[in-house]
Amino acid sequence: MVFMRSVSDLDTPSVTILIDRVQANIDRIQGMVAGAGFANRPHIKTHKIPQIARMQIAAGAVGITCQKLSEAEAFIDAGVADDILITFNIVGEKKLERLMALSARIKRLAVVADSETVLRGISAAAVRHDRVVPFLVECDTGFGRNGVQSPAAAVALAQLSTSLPGVRFEGVMTYPVGTPAAKIFLVETLALFAAAGIEVPIVSGGGSPALTSLADFPMLTEHRAGTYVYNDVMMMASGVAGWDDCALQVRATVVSRPSPDRAIIDAGSKVLTREQYYVKDFGRVVEYPDAVVANLSEEHGMIDLSRSATKPEVGDVVSIIPNHCCVVSNMVDRVYVVRGDQVIDIYPVAARGAVW
Amino acid sequence: MVFMRSVSDLDTPSVTILIDRVQANIDRIQGMVAGAGFANRPHIKTHKIPQIARMQIAAGAVGITCQKLSEAEAFIDAGVADDILITFNIVGEKKLERLMALSARIKRLAVVADSETVLRGISAAAVRHDRVVPFLVECDTGFGRNGVQSPAAAVALAQLSTSLPGVRFEGVMTYPVGTPAAKIFLVETLALFAAAGIEVPIVSGGGSPALTSLADFPMLTEHRAGTYVYNDVMMMASGVAGWDDCALQVRATVVSRPSPDRAIIDAGSKVLTREQYYVKDFGRVVEYPDAVVANLSEEHGMIDLSRSATKPEVGDVVSIIPNHCCVVSNMVDRVYVVRGDQVIDIYPVAARGAVW
Repeated sequence: MVFMRSVSDLDTPSVTILIDRVQANIDRIQGMVAGAGFANRPHIKTHKIPQIARMQIAAGAVGITCQKLSEAEAFIDAGVADDILITFNIVGEKKLERLMALSARIKRLAVVADSETVLRGISAAAVRHDRVVPFLVECDTGFGRNGVQSPAAAVALAQLSTSLPGVRFEGVMTYPVGTPAAKIFLVETLALFAAAGIEVPIVSGGGSPALTSLADFPMLTEHRAGTYVYNDVMMMASGVAGWDDCALQVRATVVSRPSPDRAIIDAGSKVLTREQYYVKDFGRVVEYPDAVVANLSEEHGMIDLSRSATKPEVGDVVSIIPNHCCVVSNMVDRVYVVRGDQVIDIYPVAARGAVW
Repeated sequence: MVFMRSVSDLDTPSVTILIDRVQANIDRIQGMVAGAGFANRPHIKTHKIPQIARMQIAAGAVGITCQKLSEAEAFIDAGVADDILITFNIVGEKKLERLMALSARIKRLAVVADSETVLRGISAAAVRHDRVVPFLVECDTGFGRNGVQSPAAAVALAQLSTSLPGVRFEGVMTYPVGTPAAKIFLVETLALFAAAGIEVPIVSGGGSPALTSLADFPMLTEHRAGTYVYNDVMMMASGVAGWDDCALQVRATVVSRPSPDRAIIDAGSKVLTREQYYVKDFGRVVEYPDAVVANLSEEHGMIDLSRSATKPEVGDVVSIIPNHCCVVSNMVDRVYVVRGDQVIDIYPVAARGAVW
C-alpha cells in the first residue's frame, strides 16, 4: 500500500500504533514463551486486527485466542489462523450453530466449558453436525470469574465428556496464571487427573503480567497473552514493560488550559475509557512524563500538570499511553500505523465491537 | 418499516430501547423544562440517534446540543435540527474548516469558547469564510473541567469578542448546574455583565440531575440535559428516575453459574463499560432486583446473587440497567427498538464513535 503522510497531519483524537515497537514486542515475548518451552497462543482481543495477528503467527505463534465467536469469525474471514481457541462459554442455539459453521472452516477450533450445561449444549450441536469439538475445562484458580471451582470438578467434567458424543477433552485452561493460588490449583488438578488415569494434553495459562513468572509454571503447555503486543500503563505498573515498549498511543489536542496546573484534551473516555484496575489515573503523557491524565469525561481528558515543569499550550498535540490498551482498540474503527514520523498504513479494527 | 420479532429472539448481548418509556421521558422532561420557563436543548450524546432527536424536537425542544463536530455532522446529515450548540472548544485548522462547512448548512450553529486562543481561531476561520459564528463563554462553575475560572474572565472574553470579527457573543454556559457553587458563579457573572452594560441573551445550564433543582436557577434561559431520555442507575441514585423510567436495557445471557452466589453474563465492559462515578457497582438486573453487577471484564459481567432469593440458570437471559446509559450507546452499532415483547425497529447509532 502506498500511503504516507506525516503523523502531525492526523486529526485528533487518533489512535496510533508504532509498528516497530509492535514487532519488537512480538519477537521478545515469542522468544520468552518459546524459551519456557510453551506454545504461544496470543489473545487477539488486544489489537482485534488481522494484520497484527499475522505478525504474531509469522513470529511463531501456534494459533490465536479469541474471546468471542464474532472475533473468531472476523479472523477466520481474514484467513489469519487455522488453529483458534475461543475462551468463552458458548451458550444458546444461535451461537452453537455459528460455532458449528466456523468449526468447519479451519483445522482446529477449540472451546472451553465449565459446566455440564455448557458441555451438553456443545455436544448436542456437534452431533447434529456430525462433528467433534475439542474443549478445555476452564478452571477458576482464584480470579473469581468463570470456571470450575475445584480440581475435582475439573476432573468430573472431563470424565462426563467421555460419555458425551461430539466433544473431546483436550485439557484445562485458566486466567490468569502467575499467582500462588493458580499454581496450587493447577498442581492439584493435574495430580487428580493423573490419579484418574486421564491424559491432559493441554494446560493453557493466560495473561501478560504472568509472562514474568512462566518459570514457576512448568506444568503449562501453552500461554495466552494479549496486552504485550502494545503494552500500556498497567503493563508498566506490572513491571513487564517500559515506556519505550508502549506501541499504542492516543494523539490528542490540548483544547483548554483553564488553570496553571490543568490541561484539557479532546480525548476522553470514548477513546481512553475509564478502565483503572490498580492504576489510580487514566494514562500518561509521552511528551510530559510528569503529567498524568487525572480524570476523564466522555469527550474531555483532564491532565494534571502540577508535577510537570513544562506545560503544553492550547493547540499542542500530545501522545497518551492509556491505562489499558485492549479496551482502547475497541473504541475506534481504525488505527494509524506509524514508523518514525510517518503514517505508513491504516488498519481497520476488524473485530471492534465483536461481542456476540 | 415493517419489522417485528420477539425480543426473546435477539441474540445477546443486545442493547434494547423501550420506546414508550423513551417517549414518556421526553414528554415529562420537556414539560419540566418548559414549565420552568427555559428552552430545552437536549444533549444528543446520550442516544446518538437522529430518530430519537426527532422525537425530542417534536415534543418542543428548540434544538440540540452536540459535544463534538462529528456528532453535529451526523445529525445535520440526518436533517434533524437547524439549531445546534456544540459545547466543546473547537481547536485546529482542520476542525475550524469543518465548523465553517457545517455552519453554512443550518440556520444557527453556535459554539463555546473559554480562552482568547480558542476565540481567535474561530474568528479567523469565520473571517476567511465571511461568516459570523455565535458563541457562548464556557464557565467552570466548580466542575473542574473546561471553562473560564472567574466571572471577571467571562466578561473579559465577551469584551474581547467585540474587537474580533466573525464572532458574536450570545451568552454563557456551564456544566453542570444544580450546585450552590454554580449558582453563586452565575449570579456574580450576570451582575458583572450588567455592570459592564453587556447583554447576556443566553444562560445555558446542563445536566440531567440538575432537572430537580431548576427552580433554584431562575437566571437560566435554556437547559441541556441528555441522560433523562433513557435514564440509568446513576439517574436513579440521583433521585431523578425510577426503575420504570429506565428505557435502555442490555439483554445478556447467563453463561456460567460457577458458585451459588455468582452468575457470569456475556456482557462485560465492551457493552456496559466500567463507568462508575458515584455508583459502586456496574448495573442492576431487572429480573433480579436484589442482584448487582459487581464487576466487569471486557466480555464477562460478574453478577453478585448473594442478596437475591431467586437466581438465574445458565442459558437464562437477563436485562441489565447500566450505570450510565450514554456510554453504553457508544459501544454498539445499533439498538433494538422494543414495544411490549416485540422488536419493532432497529436504529443505527449514527454518531457512535464520533469523537472528532
